[in-house]
Amino acid sequence: MDPAPLLARHVARFEAALDRLTPPADTRPERLHRAMRYSLEAGGKRLRPVLCLAAAELCGAAPEDALPAAVALECVHTYSLIHDDLPCLDNDDLRRGRPTVHRAFDEATALLAGDALLTHAFVLLSTAHADRPGLAHALIRELADAAGSRRLIGGQMEDVLAEKRADVTAADLEFIHRNKTAAMLEASLVMGGLVAGTPEPTLTALRRAGEHLGLCFQIVDDVLDATADQATLGKTPGKDARAGKATYVSLHGLETARRLAAEQTEAAVRELAAVPGDSAFLRALVASLARRDR
Amino acid sequence: MDPAPLLARHVARFEAALDRLTPPADTRPERLHRAMRYSLEAGGKRLRPVLCLAAAELCGAAPEDALPAAVALECVHTYSLIHDDLPCLDNDDLRRGRPTVHRAFDEATALLAGDALLTHAFVLLSTAHADRPGLAHALIRELADAAGSRRLIGGQMEDVLAEKRADVTAADLEFIHRNKTAAMLEASLVMGGLVAGTPEPTLTALRRAGEHLGLCFQIVDDVLDATADQATLGKTPGKDARAGKATYVSLHGLETARRLAAEQTEAAVRELAAVPGDSAFLRALVASLARRDR
Repeated sequence: MDPAPLLARHVARFEAALDRLTPPADTRPERLHRAMRYSLEAGGKRLRPVLCLAAAELCGAAPEDALPAAVALECVHTYSLIHDDLPCLDNDDLRRGRPTVHRAFDEATALLAGDALLTHAFVLLSTAHADRPGLAHALIRELADAAGSRRLIGGQMEDVLAEKRADVTAADLEFIHRNKTAAMLEASLVMGGLVAGTPEPTLTALRRAGEHLGLCFQIVDDVLDATADQATLGKTPGKDARAGKATYVSLHGLETARRLAAEQTEAAVRELAAVPGDSAFLRALVASLARRDR
Repeated sequence: MDPAPLLARHVARFEAALDRLTPPADTRPERLHRAMRYSLEAGGKRLRPVLCLAAAELCGAAPEDALPAAVALECVHTYSLIHDDLPCLDNDDLRRGRPTVHRAFDEATALLAGDALLTHAFVLLSTAHADRPGLAHALIRELADAAGSRRLIGGQMEDVLAEKRADVTAADLEFIHRNKTAAMLEASLVMGGLVAGTPEPTLTALRRAGEHLGLCFQIVDDVLDATADQATLGKTPGKDARAGKATYVSLHGLETARRLAAEQTEAAVRELAAVPGDSAFLRALVASLARRDR
């Protein structure tokens, strides 16, 4: 199955909702809301929203019912990128070919726009589902947990610390990616399932699929950084090696890293296949992410 | 009525819960969790938690039932201080006589500890009230709204922008304080009321009391900065005037500022008196905040 047509439909649906479910750019204070929209509208794969909409559909809900969850996930993802790019963390000037928020605006605005996007995720989930407080509560619990100090932010913190260490182990690297990357992918699939009122065993399969997908995604990133040419990758390859950064490739070698990526992909596909319903799109999407060349 | 004895009891109750309801300092990653606790345990007035516990008691709940809400409020307040102190905003080296988080740790850790505290507020509200999803939902909605881009962060953004402007009006200043300070005081009282299952008209009175208290608190701050001596204030007075910052004193003069503070105090006390129940403690607390000399 070619996932591209349904992927495009999910992305289009999501983009329309993103515009509707975030404050207009002329909301006071304008500078803050313009910065929030500048970063939200920068594009990107929209992977987390698509996983959420597709999981909702797989579990029998209308994808439209998962739009607030999808937008909340993207708000949290975008906030984490804005803060990541700040001078005290990665100090990046460009993201997706455009100036990062602190370059396009300034550091204070970027800091506050990140804070505002994180907060908006919870505003959105609690207002959009005001008539179903049980659902709002379950979605918020899942998202807050994935974004919290033990997961997304914890992975981020250990990533920062690892850059200054020469003794990073394979277990350390797995902790970082399990939390920095996989946590939000797990939440994306689980929140889709929650919207559909899916029972616990299925939520567990979705969570496991997200975890495997997150690890696969990160290993493929490391492999591409070590092997791709600049024209294909769209950014400078070899950055990790030059920075002396521990990666799956530096710790395990290229061949083992490729094998580990394939294993994680297979495991993700297996978990998805165990979910009752038609998981063909999600399985094809996962396979295409493992095969990507940028 | 002297509010001091009950104030001390509320603070002691809160401090014990703060320790219980935040991740231990040795949670992985340790550096992140140590920074979160370093800032949470720095003390301060604990005004927001006390308002929340007292409002719950006023409305007929056991103050203990409001402890998760009180801790969540303090997490959000503390995160806003950590981010405020960062070099790209106020660039403060000291807070309450101790090095700020980015001085005691580093900027990256301070940024992430702030993010983690904001997120923890929602983790806490959704887990502590897992058996009452309706309550969890109402508390989260109230807190997210108060902390959001139109209120706490919006006030913060306009405050940053106002520092670079020479034409700040009285209406601009009120927007800043209504959102930067009053929003969280409103939420503190309202969340106490929500824990007690208080009906809407009373919640509205609590919200109005918080708004008046927030404005009074800020005007008194401005008056103290213009009049107090360093020994009494515990920090350098006259900072605002030297920075050319618009304040209630610079815009309205000292006498009018004092009158406005008295009017806001009276209005807050009047709203509290309208709430059914014994509001003597909260009214005395508000009066004592208006009379404070530091």
